[in-house]
Amino acid sequence: MERQDEPGGGLKHHDSAEELGSPPFSSCEYSRSPELEEPAKMRRNDNYLPVPGEEKNLDVDFTSTKPRSNESIPMKNLYADDGSPLYPQLGPYFSDGRRRVDYVLAYHIQKPSGIRRQSSRFGDTNFIRRLRRSLSMRSSRAPLQPKEDPEIAAQEQRTDYHEDDKRFRREEFEENLLETGLELEKDDGCKIPGIGFLKIHAPWNVLCREAEFMKLKMPTKKVYDVKQGSNVVEKIRLFIHKVTAPLHPKVDANRPDSVKSLSHPFSREKQHLFDLSDRDKFFDSKTRSSIVYEVLKRTRCTKAKYSMGITSLLANGVYTSAYPLHDGDIEGVNAEPNDRKLLYEEWASYSVFYKYQPIGLIRKYFGEKVGLYFAWLGVYTQMLIPAAIVGVIVFLYGCATVDDNIPSMEICDPRNNITMCPLCDHACSYWKLVTACGTARASHLFDNPATVFFSIFMALWAVLFMEHWKRRQMRLNYIWDLTGFGEEEEEEHKDHNRAEYEFRVMQKTMKQEHSIPKDEKVKLTCTDRLPAYLTTVVMMCFMIAVTFAIVFGVILYRISIKAALHISTYPAARSNIRATVKTTAAIINLIVIIILDEIYASIARWLTTLEVPKTDKSFEERLIFKTFILKFVNAFTPIVYLAFFRGRLVGRPGNYLYVVGSYRMEECAHAGCLMELCIQLCITMLGKQLIQNNLFEIGIPKLKKLLRKRKSDLDSKQEEELNKTMQRHEKDHFLGPFVGLSPEYMEMIIQFGMVTLFVASFPLAPLFALLNNIIEIRLDAKKFVMELRRPIAAKAKDIGIWYNLLRGLSKVAVIVNAFVISFTSDFIPRLVYQYTYSPDGTMHGFINHTLSYFNVSDFQPGTDPLQPMHLGYPVDMCRYKDYREPPWSNTPYELSKEFWAILAARLAFVIVFQNVVMLMSDFVDWLIPDIPKDISLQIHKEKILMVELFMKEEQGKRLAARDKDSQDNYTSPSSANESPPQPRSRPISHANCC
Amino acid sequence: MERQDEPGGGLKHHDSAEELGSPPFSSCEYSRSPELEEPAKMRRNDNYLPVPGEEKNLDVDFTSTKPRSNESIPMKNLYADDGSPLYPQLGPYFSDGRRRVDYVLAYHIQKPSGIRRQSSRFGDTNFIRRLRRSLSMRSSRAPLQPKEDPEIAAQEQRTDYHEDDKRFRREEFEENLLETGLELEKDDGCKIPGIGFLKIHAPWNVLCREAEFMKLKMPTKKVYDVKQGSNVVEKIRLFIHKVTAPLHPKVDANRPDSVKSLSHPFSREKQHLFDLSDRDKFFDSKTRSSIVYEVLKRTRCTKAKYSMGITSLLANGVYTSAYPLHDGDIEGVNAEPNDRKLLYEEWASYSVFYKYQPIGLIRKYFGEKVGLYFAWLGVYTQMLIPAAIVGVIVFLYGCATVDDNIPSMEICDPRNNITMCPLCDHACSYWKLVTACGTARASHLFDNPATVFFSIFMALWAVLFMEHWKRRQMRLNYIWDLTGFGEEEEEEHKDHNRAEYEFRVMQKTMKQEHSIPKDEKVKLTCTDRLPAYLTTVVMMCFMIAVTFAIVFGVILYRISIKAALHISTYPAARSNIRATVKTTAAIINLIVIIILDEIYASIARWLTTLEVPKTDKSFEERLIFKTFILKFVNAFTPIVYLAFFRGRLVGRPGNYLYVVGSYRMEECAHAGCLMELCIQLCITMLGKQLIQNNLFEIGIPKLKKLLRKRKSDLDSKQEEELNKTMQRHEKDHFLGPFVGLSPEYMEMIIQFGMVTLFVASFPLAPLFALLNNIIEIRLDAKKFVMELRRPIAAKAKDIGIWYNLLRGLSKVAVIVNAFVISFTSDFIPRLVYQYTYSPDGTMHGFINHTLSYFNVSDFQPGTDPLQPMHLGYPVDMCRYKDYREPPWSNTPYELSKEFWAILAARLAFVIVFQNVVMLMSDFVDWLIPDIPKDISLQIHKEKILMVELFMKEEQGKRLAARDKDSQDNYTSPSSANESPPQPRSRPISHANCC
Repeated sequence: MERQDEPGGGLKHHDSAEELGSPPFSSCEYSRSPELEEPAKMRRNDNYLPVPGEEKNLDVDFTSTKPRSNESIPMKNLYADDGSPLYPQLGPYFSDGRRRVDYVLAYHIQKPSGIRRQSSRFGDTNFIRRLRRSLSMRSSRAPLQPKEDPEIAAQEQRTDYHEDDKRFRREEFEENLLETGLELEKDDGCKIPGIGFLKIHAPWNVLCREAEFMKLKMPTKKVYDVKQGSNVVEKIRLFIHKVTAPLHPKVDANRPDSVKSLSHPFSREKQHLFDLSDRDKFFDSKTRSSIVYEVLKRTRCTKAKYSMGITSLLANGVYTSAYPLHDGDIEGVNAEPNDRKLLYEEWASYSVFYKYQPIGLIRKYFGEKVGLYFAWLGVYTQMLIPAAIVGVIVFLYGCATVDDNIPSMEICDPRNNITMCPLCDHACSYWKLVTACGTARASHLFDNPATVFFSIFMALWAVLFMEHWKRRQMRLNYIWDLTGFGEEEEEEHKDHNRAEYEFRVMQKTMKQEHSIPKDEKVKLTCTDRLPAYLTTVVMMCFMIAVTFAIVFGVILYRISIKAALHISTYPAARSNIRATVKTTAAIINLIVIIILDEIYASIARWLTTLEVPKTDKSFEERLIFKTFILKFVNAFTPIVYLAFFRGRLVGRPGNYLYVVGSYRMEECAHAGCLMELCIQLCITMLGKQLIQNNLFEIGIPKLKKLLRKRKSDLDSKQEEELNKTMQRHEKDHFLGPFVGLSPEYMEMIIQFGMVTLFVASFPLAPLFALLNNIIEIRLDAKKFVMELRRPIAAKAKDIGIWYNLLRGLSKVAVIVNAFVISFTSDFIPRLVYQYTYSPDGTMHGFINHTLSYFNVSDFQPGTDPLQPMHLGYPVDMCRYKDYREPPWSNTPYELSKEFWAILAARLAFVIVFQNVVMLMSDFVDWLIPDIPKDISLQIHKEKILMVELFMKEEQGKRLAARDKDSQDNYTSPSSANESPPQPRSRPISHANCC
Repeated sequence: MERQDEPGGGLKHHDSAEELGSPPFSSCEYSRSPELEEPAKMRRNDNYLPVPGEEKNLDVDFTSTKPRSNESIPMKNLYADDGSPLYPQLGPYFSDGRRRVDYVLAYHIQKPSGIRRQSSRFGDTNFIRRLRRSLSMRSSRAPLQPKEDPEIAAQEQRTDYHEDDKRFRREEFEENLLETGLELEKDDGCKIPGIGFLKIHAPWNVLCREAEFMKLKMPTKKVYDVKQGSNVVEKIRLFIHKVTAPLHPKVDANRPDSVKSLSHPFSREKQHLFDLSDRDKFFDSKTRSSIVYEVLKRTRCTKAKYSMGITSLLANGVYTSAYPLHDGDIEGVNAEPNDRKLLYEEWASYSVFYKYQPIGLIRKYFGEKVGLYFAWLGVYTQMLIPAAIVGVIVFLYGCATVDDNIPSMEICDPRNNITMCPLCDHACSYWKLVTACGTARASHLFDNPATVFFSIFMALWAVLFMEHWKRRQMRLNYIWDLTGFGEEEEEEHKDHNRAEYEFRVMQKTMKQEHSIPKDEKVKLTCTDRLPAYLTTVVMMCFMIAVTFAIVFGVILYRISIKAALHISTYPAARSNIRATVKTTAAIINLIVIIILDEIYASIARWLTTLEVPKTDKSFEERLIFKTFILKFVNAFTPIVYLAFFRGRLVGRPGNYLYVVGSYRMEECAHAGCLMELCIQLCITMLGKQLIQNNLFEIGIPKLKKLLRKRKSDLDSKQEEELNKTMQRHEKDHFLGPFVGLSPEYMEMIIQFGMVTLFVASFPLAPLFALLNNIIEIRLDAKKFVMELRRPIAAKAKDIGIWYNLLRGLSKVAVIVNAFVISFTSDFIPRLVYQYTYSPDGTMHGFINHTLSYFNVSDFQPGTDPLQPMHLGYPVDMCRYKDYREPPWSNTPYELSKEFWAILAARLAFVIVFQNVVMLMSDFVDWLIPDIPKDISLQIHKEKILMVELFMKEEQGKRLAARDKDSQDNYTSPSSANESPPQPRSRPISHANCC
């Protein structure tokens, strides 16, 4: 209809395209047809509104009343006149500019063109070598990708399969694809030498058929009001919405928020339910590509020795890659409005960091699984805001009260002339407690009663976060029409065997062909996998041992450096001993953690490959399990050592514990190890996030892209030229493959561990995490929108295993925090002193109470200080931090009654804390319903509407049947299925037997 | 076909029926037709095999090839000849003997028959009064029934609604029912005066329509092999099956176990998938009645002031009851083989107590919800077997080692002449430790290292039980075709508003008619419910306080009786003091628990009614919540007191703790309170189960039945006569209404609590529970099969809230057991003594170590014993059980270092035990997949088969379409929906732009 408004628009548009710098490809044979140019024009003039289902298709239904059967008419008919459409060079369309490319398979071609046949042979091999190098570099940075990168696998196995064999398989596969009704177009080595593309288009009838199979829920014509509550609630909601308006991304302003269409699984028998007026917009590009992927997964090559699905074909290099196309360009002159560009502008940009994410659009473009990841990340970041605020308040409380803190006042008071025992054998001498003043004051910042409150707060925060997420997830499920979508269906998506598994099974079948009965299905048993399992166990233990060894090494470094500095006569060195040692050790730990993280990720990947898991799901689970354990041990071993072991295994003066010959185990500073724990946590968190974000997530992708570009053997000018002329599928081919969300989730889980596990010792952790995540969201967004190929839209109702890991972490966090508070901090001893031992109920005298006496004559020979007169006076008794009997008691240096009483108090605190917090968590969990009330009401309403709809339909049918029946009654016998209703002459019979 | 073999069979059968004592009701007008007699004959001769879907219908399809359209032909046609069918008097059929009664609604009729119009008026009222009395008695015994018994409600509100109004509503409701296509028959006061019955039959087309709406999964024709594993596994399974053959109930012997038909939601459009050759067997009686119930729920009376659904009609006494019919009689001459009889023989009988339950048949007869309850009870009972065995072994280990136990040997050794301090003030005197010998030896039976092992074992057992149940549930879900059945659908079944709620809303609407806007929907807000909530909170607190008070009263009883007995000079009384006091106190506790249980249940019910919950589901949840708390507090308060408080709040000699004036708090016997805890648990468990089972579950139902029978005003002879002539719906009317499964579950949950919570102190608990449950299963079975009306088959995937309660209990159990082991038993002190204080590493000297010294001169004035020379020698120092400093230390009678060390050890044990067991539980939970592997494989297989089936169908369709298209091509334009596949002239286009 609109076409007739402006009949000359096609040509005009052609001109403008030329002006804008995209030459009309005179070398290619494109058909030109005025019918096809108009919509492009239209779109450019339109105000772009991404309502669901809107797609940048040229394949618009111009006359919706006309029966549309032309999408499967052979192309020749379409391009009868001159056969050269103008526009579609750069869009994701077939060369007819009409049929959308829903999926692309890329493959190697050995002979890109007749003239380069001889000359390019060697160049080709070189190129492949370079490619392999660049790819293997990359693979070490994508440690958790769920699928083996098909391109590497292709390179590795290419010696086994000859090119002819591959071509043969490709031909068969393509035939089978055609058999299913898909339409294909080949694009052999146009601009990228050596790479051929198979473009796949799914016509309408295939889409309908597959949508019915997949039970895709599609919006029906029936629209209903979403009323979110009573009038008052609604008003408040609207007010909040208005206030936060600047925070909302500008993506769906024109879409009314208060109506939602009823969804129903698509069925061709119920077509009348759906709004099919515009067939090209009915299924959006994400849905189209996932439908094609579904067909691809089902299609198999069977003619060769053993049958191969698309996974095997990819793994064996028959195809090198498979991906759906992005919607369009982000930047540049020929970038028309599209979802990708909109995402780039409103989401994948640092300038919008303060805004909510356009989750609906993300889901529409990338699918539910990616949508859920970003929704989760958003909820997590949002929840970190209150945690960060409370954390800062707790920290400020510590700062404010540092001068009122009696224990640190006592330490800093020079009148309390307390002589402490030496910190190391021989080299060190006695020292005065007043020198520990600074540390004591700093410790108070993190070791005060507010910390206990903060631990409880964070434990409940974690539960609230979980609950909030569950509710958010439920809400998204409702909005995304996933409420009826079962878990079984979700699993099915991943249930295809992996290529490696099939390969191994084939090998085994060949080997055992004679020894086993025919009907027994060959599968890999535990025996087959035993060597791999053993390797895994041994390697895992070894790697954990390596981590422990490195932590131990750092301890030794600290001890030895400290001793060395004590000996040194250079006064500046001596004065900064503690700070220097602490900081360097923490940095060493950090570097080791980051390096080992990368190594462990690759090893975990290698071990999982060895195990040959059956399905991708199993592969992913095993990989996540291994990676999680290794990364966790790696990140937390130094912290756990600092929190729970340091300073506990010291022994006592006269009877110290020695390691590696004569090194005495290190002690904590007087005010507990909490301070050092805090420094370690701070450096690890900040450093890890800064380095990993900057170096790995920004730097390396840039490098990768550079390498990827360079492989096409073009200089920059040529490249620029090429970039302008490249088609969508060629551009996407240069992007990195999507490697799954596991690395992103893993990073966040480790961060969540940092935030919750030791929060008692570092209240600023949520703040750091918050700052990091604000960047992280946009960083990941940029990666997804710009750097990676478009992922296949995967459906998911929840975040799966990650939720369980979060839950597990928040449970462990309760116990860890209980132990940190009761054992690492001085909270319990202070409490016990104040309420039991203190003469006046205050903290005065606490420091004295914590220090035991030691008679210097009891030093073991050779361990007494070299310079006993270091302080300027002779020392008879020195003090040390422990609860032990004094030298003059019946049992000198035995643990005292106070020790046991305080130990009992500490343990009791752990029990009370753990159980109270767990009880509170369970209570909160129980109190907050998993499904938000308005959503459950809406779901119920939807169901009732659905029943009503069908009831009405049913009644219509019955009436029709009755009418028909009353006509038919005299002509034909009634049908067996729809028997006519009984005549109403005697509606209720009576059984009056009395 | 078979009909023609024996044309005279009808008459023959008629004769035999007469011989067997069922007179042919000459007073009633029954049509007789040879067609209808034959099947009855046939059935009687048949070997009865309850394959799924087989029903005792007369409505058999004799010639399955003939199109069956006669089920809706008016009855007159069927009884054309003489109009009197012989057989169907007693079966669940309409008076035509052909159409099955799927549901019955009963109602009051004021004028039962013309002749009794005047005379029966008063008799009727009397009858109602008696009925009300008997019913209110009953209602106190059915405290958890989810629905308000409609009959009581009917009586209560009958003053409000006049009979005419009721009749008017009934007429409208019946009209509306007819409108939906159901067929009705009235049976006004035939044999039971004053009660009319409306019998409802669902004809085939209604069944089909509703089955489609309800998405009922029905078996399709497609059958597939269920192969449960590899050959070896299969062989083992078969072997086990053979060995356990006598344990399997004889209900499905002829049904092959190795095939299963594929199920698919019933749809009239996909009729070809289902085996509809026998329409009467396709939907079984359970399904038919639940379909009718679905229609009933949807049908509403709207003509009167406000609209009423079936719930409101029942609540307002328009109908007095609504129930589906049982399949047939159990006993007696005219009992033909039917599912109910089979259940009675193979399940609801004590003689088959050793057999598995026929869960499939239970589900087929009673529906999924009841099936799941019995399956759960079966799994629980089965799991109790290993627990009971291990428990007995632990107990026997205690018995065997009692003589090697050094502490009790030391106590019993008269050479250890230890003088103990008096157990009560003044009246009691010093005593010798050797007199506690018996108790000490008995204590060892329950307090030995094996108990710790048993606690851990039971914690893991609980987890294993949960996991086993989850897997069993999943398996049942698979077998019962519930795998796709969502939770939302389940909830929908209960989402109808309760009648009381609607009544209250109506009241509120009337009151506020002018003050609120029209479009605002009135609902009960928190303000409306506030008084009820306040009442609930106050009452709950009050009742919990009552429980505490009673427990405290029993404590006082124990203290005072003990003191009194000590004073008494009667020697026999003195010697048995402890045993007497313990036992009587435990029995008092038991009686109080049982009485309060009943009272609390009624109060909980009353409180919940006050709150006017919106839906039945909410009502049930609130009621369960309240009842659970009250019953739990009631059952466990005395036990918790004994376990954790008794003997801890004693004080010390010279400084005792006194309650209520001068009563000293009671102490434990020397060997800990574990023994008394054990006695209390034993008496509570045994007594509760015996009394509740025998009295309440057997005695009261019998009484109820008696009362119910008596109300029909017939003497026994008449009654017997009547019993023979009563029709199915009349017989069922005399049975008790089904009141839900909550009371059954609640009983089991409390028992589970007993078994797990304090298992450390009573290893025989699982054995007692096992013995009880073996009886319980058959008792419940008898109740369901014989005493109750058939419940409406409710679908359920799981046992709902009860699973969460079980889970919660098993979590609490871990902590409770940790505390019992570490604080109530002497396990930790023994361990600490052995490894820390013992001079030779044995237990020798332990008793001496646990006893502190007391100087008798330190007694407070007036508390020293009256007879200090009771033992025959003067006492300077007496001993008491505590860790305190001796009188000669610097801090006499202070808690000693040993006390704190042991306390720390106890607390550490709690932490370790709790976390280790929780970790192990989580590990076991994680290790065992929720879905058994074979089931997940089968589900996957089913899905693939389904896809294949549809694929094949789809291909068929496409081929047909293609054929049709090639024909149509020249006659008509191709259809819009099914476009013909593209001709293969140019299948893959090439975009060779280079």
